[in-house]
Amino acid sequence: MNLRDHIRDVPNFPKEGIVYFDITPLLADPSAFQYTIDMMAERFSDYKADKIAAAEARGFIFGAPLAYKLGIGFVPIRKPGKLPYKTVSVDYDLEYGTDSLSMHIDAVDKGEDILLIDDVLATGGTAEGMVKLVEKAGGNVSGIGFLVELGFLKGREKLAGVSTQNLLQL
Amino acid sequence: MNLRDHIRDVPNFPKEGIVYFDITPLLADPSAFQYTIDMMAERFSDYKADKIAAAEARGFIFGAPLAYKLGIGFVPIRKPGKLPYKTVSVDYDLEYGTDSLSMHIDAVDKGEDILLIDDVLATGGTAEGMVKLVEKAGGNVSGIGFLVELGFLKGREKLAGVSTQNLLQL
Repeated sequence: MNLRDHIRDVPNFPKEGIVYFDITPLLADPSAFQYTIDMMAERFSDYKADKIAAAEARGFIFGAPLAYKLGIGFVPIRKPGKLPYKTVSVDYDLEYGTDSLSMHIDAVDKGEDILLIDDVLATGGTAEGMVKLVEKAGGNVSGIGFLVELGFLKGREKLAGVSTQNLLQL
Repeated sequence: MNLRDHIRDVPNFPKEGIVYFDITPLLADPSAFQYTIDMMAERFSDYKADKIAAAEARGFIFGAPLAYKLGIGFVPIRKPGKLPYKTVSVDYDLEYGTDSLSMHIDAVDKGEDILLIDDVLATGGTAEGMVKLVEKAGGNVSGIGFLVELGFLKGREKLAGVSTQNLLQL
């Protein structure tokens, strides 16, 4: 199956001149969605993982089914103010400005291997933030798996020292 | 398994006097998370479903694995401005004020049976908004499945005419 056939190009979103890769057709197609999760399980199985962590909101759509399939726990990474218990947080750089991510302080045990999952690797800011967050909480990021990597944005360069893989390179 | 044992009570969140039911311990425990998705598949199987729809962000954590397990498509319902393609939107009532939900206009085919999934049924505002949204897009809500129903908030009364089930009543 060619996953590219299930990703829709939407011009001028979120702003003029940007082509956005819309994954909702992939989600709507049962065989494409199942294939995606099954391929993630197969391709990212090199990474030791006690738990999967993923950031809201689209990361949850792939991270949670993969955790279910692999029979491991799932850790939601959220924007500040969303998690009810004590949290650890990090700021990370975006193209313009900064943003923050939070995780419960007891979400990751010391030395646990964490597989990070996200839908798209673009400029790498969010992924870099997730790595910092897991490490700050005492976990070890064993790898990062993406559905799509936008190679021309060179996000991988921000993630030096962390192994990353994708199902589809654009 | 008693799922209640995997839900943490956090007092005074999101504000003084409220006890928040934190589902992150359930997610972190592989057997509790697997049991939850498997029980949803079993208990909500009375509802005919061509697709599952769920609202960001916590709805994705249960809706996406259940769609994967059942081998059906998944439709993300989002806050306005997040979806790249043409959308249909509804406003819905919250305890104080209103909020909005959006879905892609082609996410649901006319007459398709949609199973809605969410983590918690509280006052029912969000669930009512999801029902309106699916119906506005031409779909048929065959049922709503929740992990937890907070019966004392009487959210079910807002959902008259739609069958709802839960795995855990508090």
